[in-house]
Amino acid sequence: MVEICEVGPRDGLQNEAVTLSVSDRVQLINRLVEAGITKVEAVSFVNPKVVVQMAEPEEVMRQLNQAVGVRFAGLVLSAKGMERAMESDVDDIHLVLAASTAFNLKNARRTTDESLGELVPLVERAKTGHRGVTAVIGTAFGCPFEGKVSEEVVFYAAKRFLDAGADAITLADTTGMANPGQVRNMVEAFVEQFPDVPLGLHFHNTRGLGAANVYAGYLAGVRRFDASIGGLGGCPFAPLSVGNVCTEDVVHMFEQMGVDTGLNLDGLLAAARFAQEKVQHPVDSYVLRAGPVP
Amino acid sequence: MVEICEVGPRDGLQNEAVTLSVSDRVQLINRLVEAGITKVEAVSFVNPKVVVQMAEPEEVMRQLNQAVGVRFAGLVLSAKGMERAMESDVDDIHLVLAASTAFNLKNARRTTDESLGELVPLVERAKTGHRGVTAVIGTAFGCPFEGKVSEEVVFYAAKRFLDAGADAITLADTTGMANPGQVRNMVEAFVEQFPDVPLGLHFHNTRGLGAANVYAGYLAGVRRFDASIGGLGGCPFAPLSVGNVCTEDVVHMFEQMGVDTGLNLDGLLAAARFAQEKVQHPVDSYVLRAGPVP
Repeated sequence: MVEICEVGPRDGLQNEAVTLSVSDRVQLINRLVEAGITKVEAVSFVNPKVVVQMAEPEEVMRQLNQAVGVRFAGLVLSAKGMERAMESDVDDIHLVLAASTAFNLKNARRTTDESLGELVPLVERAKTGHRGVTAVIGTAFGCPFEGKVSEEVVFYAAKRFLDAGADAITLADTTGMANPGQVRNMVEAFVEQFPDVPLGLHFHNTRGLGAANVYAGYLAGVRRFDASIGGLGGCPFAPLSVGNVCTEDVVHMFEQMGVDTGLNLDGLLAAARFAQEKVQHPVDSYVLRAGPVP
Repeated sequence: MVEICEVGPRDGLQNEAVTLSVSDRVQLINRLVEAGITKVEAVSFVNPKVVVQMAEPEEVMRQLNQAVGVRFAGLVLSAKGMERAMESDVDDIHLVLAASTAFNLKNARRTTDESLGELVPLVERAKTGHRGVTAVIGTAFGCPFEGKVSEEVVFYAAKRFLDAGADAITLADTTGMANPGQVRNMVEAFVEQFPDVPLGLHFHNTRGLGAANVYAGYLAGVRRFDASIGGLGGCPFAPLSVGNVCTEDVVHMFEQMGVDTGLNLDGLLAAARFAQEKVQHPVDSYVLRAGPVP
């Protein structure tokens, strides 16, 4: 059994030229949930002047169909974002920073240490408010500005969040620099240091290695993967960084391998077609083009 | 160390709408060799009325720069093709059939058994003419018309060719139906049955799993992979089957993993740009678009 955390409505749409209406964002999420998705990164509590595609997270949350067993997460980069998140209906808080300071400065206008100092204390706040907390550590597999990112920095950040009470860690390959050998090594080192911590992986398909990296993570024991419907996404601050790994392609891979995802592939393909229509360009989805293996 | 067998000039170009001139085909192959490629499926001895893109293999072979340590292979589907191959300068003969009869009927107008009866005796002919012989067994991971293909049929065909003296076997996922779990199982079973036989793998990226399948084959011990520059290719008889796994993407993956390929990535990218210009459409290459990991 593998769990997909659907990040298309957030990491996907935030990098699209077309800004979807709140109603379209809600419809997309509802379609994903109908296809069996139980965890969605639905919104982002960032400055709407900077990321206009993510405006009105509170309104998105209000309009969503609440379904039993489904958890909606909101991204938080700062204490200010946390205030808004706690006033909204999100089930989970995704506290995000980049292990690379050069990248974090562009993404959050703070050094990695400054973000840690600001975000770590928010874990307790979230927990007392009965929200789940995942710490997402970006550029964990490399930084387009700094190159290699040391495992020590990544694990130090993870430890800080875990010591404060975070429920889970996601290691994110923000700009698609990971390779499958590195993924296995990183996961094995993580599991050795944090044996009982739920670990998720977040990959981009920038250099065509998204599925290979997911497979490598699976072999190393990971059972939770971020993916984006239609392969939507990227990163506005990383030129040429193409989309996240594509939900329907990853789910199709696992299905073919006989690994249960609990998801309905036809439903996902319908959601991908809806997303494709709304973003107004062909999406980077192999299974949408070629169809599943007959 | 991993060896790439470059199949773009054959499996790639044969499925393009634009037919390249002999001179352009020769230039493409020479550029690939300059980038370090030592094994190229350069030509195909099929009926030029059926596959016009592959016309004049003899002339392509005549015009190629001969380089020490580089082997040029020609594809052969029939005894008639073999006659032509033996009169040409190819170093290696790739004897090709599909394990699925439904597919082989479309591709070679023969049942699998008929092709075996015709091709197996050609092994001796090639060996006495001092040519290398690889038997390529297509639809080894599934057939778009028949669905699952039994391992027994695939291994029976392999055994027939090996008993006749073939040097190597390539298992080909002709229409992109393989998944990484299946690849590992298949390779492990093959190695158990044929422990000392050089094994190559040939994948298409139809459903986005090309790199994952290469990685899975590598983990299972395979060190020879077919790949196509710019991800050119597909199969004219399999609708929606997109290109082969992309040479520069696969080489980039191995480089990032610290696995030597003996190839020059910049040279491959230059060859991919040349191919892209000649086929007159954007090719399916991630590293060409995004650039290598910095």
